[in-house]
Amino acid sequence: MKNINPARSGVKLQTLKGFRDFLPKEARKRQYVANILIKVFESYGFEPLETPALEYEEILLGKYGEEGDKLMYRFEDLGKRKVALRYDQTVPLARVIAQYQNDLPMPFKRYQIQNVWRAENTQRGRYREFLQCDADIVGSSSPFSDAEIITVAADSLKKLGFKNFKILVNDRSVFSSFDKFGSLPEKDLSIVVKAIDKLKKIGEEKVLDELIRNGIEKERATYILQALREKKPTPQINEILDSLKKLGLSENEIEFLPTLARGLDYYTGMIFEVEIDGYTAGSVAGGGRYDNLIGLFAKKLVPAVGFAFGFDRLIETMDALSLFPQNLITTKVLVTIFSNDLKEKSFEIYQKVRNENINCEIYLDENTPLEKQLKYADKKGIPYAIIIGPEEAKNNTVTLKNLKTGEQKITDLEQITKQLGTSN
Amino acid sequence: MKNINPARSGVKLQTLKGFRDFLPKEARKRQYVANILIKVFESYGFEPLETPALEYEEILLGKYGEEGDKLMYRFEDLGKRKVALRYDQTVPLARVIAQYQNDLPMPFKRYQIQNVWRAENTQRGRYREFLQCDADIVGSSSPFSDAEIITVAADSLKKLGFKNFKILVNDRSVFSSFDKFGSLPEKDLSIVVKAIDKLKKIGEEKVLDELIRNGIEKERATYILQALREKKPTPQINEILDSLKKLGLSENEIEFLPTLARGLDYYTGMIFEVEIDGYTAGSVAGGGRYDNLIGLFAKKLVPAVGFAFGFDRLIETMDALSLFPQNLITTKVLVTIFSNDLKEKSFEIYQKVRNENINCEIYLDENTPLEKQLKYADKKGIPYAIIIGPEEAKNNTVTLKNLKTGEQKITDLEQITKQLGTSN
Repeated sequence: MKNINPARSGVKLQTLKGFRDFLPKEARKRQYVANILIKVFESYGFEPLETPALEYEEILLGKYGEEGDKLMYRFEDLGKRKVALRYDQTVPLARVIAQYQNDLPMPFKRYQIQNVWRAENTQRGRYREFLQCDADIVGSSSPFSDAEIITVAADSLKKLGFKNFKILVNDRSVFSSFDKFGSLPEKDLSIVVKAIDKLKKIGEEKVLDELIRNGIEKERATYILQALREKKPTPQINEILDSLKKLGLSENEIEFLPTLARGLDYYTGMIFEVEIDGYTAGSVAGGGRYDNLIGLFAKKLVPAVGFAFGFDRLIETMDALSLFPQNLITTKVLVTIFSNDLKEKSFEIYQKVRNENINCEIYLDENTPLEKQLKYADKKGIPYAIIIGPEEAKNNTVTLKNLKTGEQKITDLEQITKQLGTSN
Repeated sequence: MKNINPARSGVKLQTLKGFRDFLPKEARKRQYVANILIKVFESYGFEPLETPALEYEEILLGKYGEEGDKLMYRFEDLGKRKVALRYDQTVPLARVIAQYQNDLPMPFKRYQIQNVWRAENTQRGRYREFLQCDADIVGSSSPFSDAEIITVAADSLKKLGFKNFKILVNDRSVFSSFDKFGSLPEKDLSIVVKAIDKLKKIGEEKVLDELIRNGIEKERATYILQALREKKPTPQINEILDSLKKLGLSENEIEFLPTLARGLDYYTGMIFEVEIDGYTAGSVAGGGRYDNLIGLFAKKLVPAVGFAFGFDRLIETMDALSLFPQNLITTKVLVTIFSNDLKEKSFEIYQKVRNENINCEIYLDENTPLEKQLKYADKKGIPYAIIIGPEEAKNNTVTLKNLKTGEQKITDLEQITKQLGTSN
């Protein structure tokens, strides 16, 4: 930290577009959500995995289509290696599976909650650095794995406080098998999936337009849409729906939707998305089976099924539906210092409160007016303050002030402990 | 995920030098430590802060000396912005303080646990991506803040299970004021600090060599070393030591060490380091007061005191001292599937165990031999398995197998619940 000349520094105080600071209030919300998700994932036997922020470029390049290669943060490091920042958590998972195949239990159930970086056009709710939150089962093709993934998603939502949600389910494999003109050619599959994926957002007419614009004849496009709507669940989907019931999901939480498409190319079987009642800005979670991707580096077939939460969208939705506890600060009380003379008394009380395992603070400067100390507590959202003035010191009492209501009462430590409870 | 041709991919399965994957066993250790630290930090009213992985280069450049500029990961993004990866968490904190000064409570007590990236020469225990774990108090120059920072470090160590540690304390300001030849000139201060910092590691003779090699005359170098050894605690340090006692630290946990230097240039007052008995690979935590750095962008004096854990060294030390719980996996039991006929029975038991809030798994493929299912549980470290064979199904019992001892007994669900306890 040499040669710093603040006066000359003159740098702009800003973060990069699409990158965010999380001040305590926001950071707490994120911790709250991540902790609940981890708890749910763990309860089903999913285990944590972390991979590096930087990988050799060749590991990531070409795995996300042209678009992905374009949006990837890539550069040459000091050792002239071509490196790239993590773009998702699935390709690194594929590398991990290939690299440590003998060390990992199979099926391998892992969750991963790390940032990824994409140089996207920023817009509301879309960032260049964002947290991904994935849970996947690798190495099992049993429909029960599909059911477990959906159950974990549903259970997470419940534990986060969501009451009215619906899980829309479909089988991606039907998209290539419903064509009376013969099965859908490979080149058209991606076009159809991408167009149908927008059905809810842009409506039937525009989907048809898009299909036609992309080279599918009108008659065929119309047929495809019609045929899709009439599809019945595949045996695979029926088995999954059946398992879901056994796993305790209620009928009105699940819906078979034959026009559900999911934009990504790589799904091979069951796909699902979560819809929250009263929130239309899009799905907060989705996933499906993708049997051809994880074996990429291992050079063998490795079946996989998984899902991801859109972490930012989750936070946004929970904010909109007021699902966060009112106050996430864990500090219960600020012990104020009335005056330099009385600071020993405050110390003493502070120590006693701490010894009761109550998260608390003592104000760090004895020369600060009480008013300012209380404002500090209020700004942090600390709900209570303890005041020990000359009167309290003399009578061996303390004043407990509720900073929200302004109410205050003279009391003793035992009462305070009872009122504030312990912090764990 | 288009156009993937695994056969042609031929990429090397590797992470970059100095970058690591954390498979579940290691990832769990890291979670365990981070969770305890967060809990302790929170208990003292420190709040979480997150800053972006990428910053404008101009924010970071020149703040870590020439060495820092050299080791920083820097590149040009797609929008031709010069950007750099987070190199530490202190300069971003300084930016945050300047950028949001009106929104933040003062003093601002924050912790930050994020990765940083440095293109260092890798060696045992030194990586290019590593987790930093900082707690700082910004905006208070009260010695009580210094004492609180030391207390938080000590309390964290205790909560992590360390029993015998010593906190070495000194006042960096004495380094510029002990010279009988006049006070130490600015240019020599850094030389003296860096040399004295190695005293324990390389011994007195080599420290003297280094001082002389760097242009300090022999007589003066010898005097400096001698004078340092004889230093008594400054009034500031005495006040801090006094507060530490009040905060419950015992005498043998603290030691004034007048030759403690700490390598970094930016300290201005109290400095400290933690030494673990029986572990000599270096300090697991350290910190101090640095009143001239945080105001850098705000262009005013902002006093600050803080400390950081060397996260990797902490994990290493805890491993060496066996401070981790034997088994960090949270799954208590695997419900196996005896046969396709009996899978409904397993489902039923699985649901019942889940409903008791016990973290459990059901094996995800009913066609897998029981032996293989038990191996799966063992590989993950799941301590128990439930087996429901034809006999058990008939009698409405289950077999509970202890996978460590091999012991198994026929029992019922109520007993199992009692034995396994709930998971939260």
